[in-house]
Amino acid sequence: MDALEAIKGRRSIREFTDEPISKEILTEILDAARWAPSGGNRQGWRFVVVTDPQVKEMIRKVSPGIFALPAAFIVICMKKKAGARAWDEWLYAADCGIAAQNIMLAAFSLGIGTCVVASFAKEALREILEVPEGIEPSLIVTLGHYESLPEAPERKPLKEIAFLNRYGEEWGQ
Amino acid sequence: MDALEAIKGRRSIREFTDEPISKEILTEILDAARWAPSGGNRQGWRFVVVTDPQVKEMIRKVSPGIFALPAAFIVICMKKKAGARAWDEWLYAADCGIAAQNIMLAAFSLGIGTCVVASFAKEALREILEVPEGIEPSLIVTLGHYESLPEAPERKPLKEIAFLNRYGEEWGQ
Repeated sequence: MDALEAIKGRRSIREFTDEPISKEILTEILDAARWAPSGGNRQGWRFVVVTDPQVKEMIRKVSPGIFALPAAFIVICMKKKAGARAWDEWLYAADCGIAAQNIMLAAFSLGIGTCVVASFAKEALREILEVPEGIEPSLIVTLGHYESLPEAPERKPLKEIAFLNRYGEEWGQ
Repeated sequence: MDALEAIKGRRSIREFTDEPISKEILTEILDAARWAPSGGNRQGWRFVVVTDPQVKEMIRKVSPGIFALPAAFIVICMKKKAGARAWDEWLYAADCGIAAQNIMLAAFSLGIGTCVVASFAKEALREILEVPEGIEPSLIVTLGHYESLPEAPERKPLKEIAFLNRYGEEWGQ
């Protein structure tokens, strides 16, 4: 699938079929995540792929943002430096978002739907996944096969959000 | 360009030719940014595209992470709610990273090199770009045509960063 087509065609999918995702496809998606750029190339992310039904059910219970069980979760964890400052925290979050988007675009291009979820109980998730201290479960991406793509939610037009040279100056088109 | 090829082939480019980027291509890149998912679909990002040589030079002076002037900058600003909590701040940063990756992948698929830069003086940048209070210049993406792609920096192998069902359990391949 063409990159621009993936970027514009990707939708957040919340209803999945029961079909599992092959290990080959999951590995391809993880490999895409690995190629995300990161601040100072620190590659601070760790990825826990969850396919075990019991573990998935435990995660769902502590994640109000997840309604139905997908075929798999990828939990993106960030390995942090002790005593990270606010600025570092900010960068960890941006790194995490960049990797999440690689996961979502790679998945979509391989026919897999995804939804990124930030609403979950971090400490509970840490216990379920046995994530060590100093590493934080940061984002969840749900993954599964799907029957149909939802309509695109409304997007702001470029003229509202893009400017030329100075904030508020019309970009034009 | 194929989406997976873009994801794996993209490199951070820091040396650009003097060739300007057409408005058509910049608009296509902005449109890709606009399709990024965001928490609650709030679309809190604003994008200031900087092509004016004087403004570019002012930005370079307050950005120790930028060595050479590219053909353009895109400054990603986040529109924040007043009194945002730490968790909201975290989500703003993740949203920003997701949009940045759309910009970088779209650009690469259109033959444009990019590098994401987080190291700059935020308040100085706000003044230069006349960004209103409540909106924060959050990330810079430099953009330009390039002559050659640098070699890929080392990436951690999947067995170090990917796990199955619980942290530390081998993903295998």
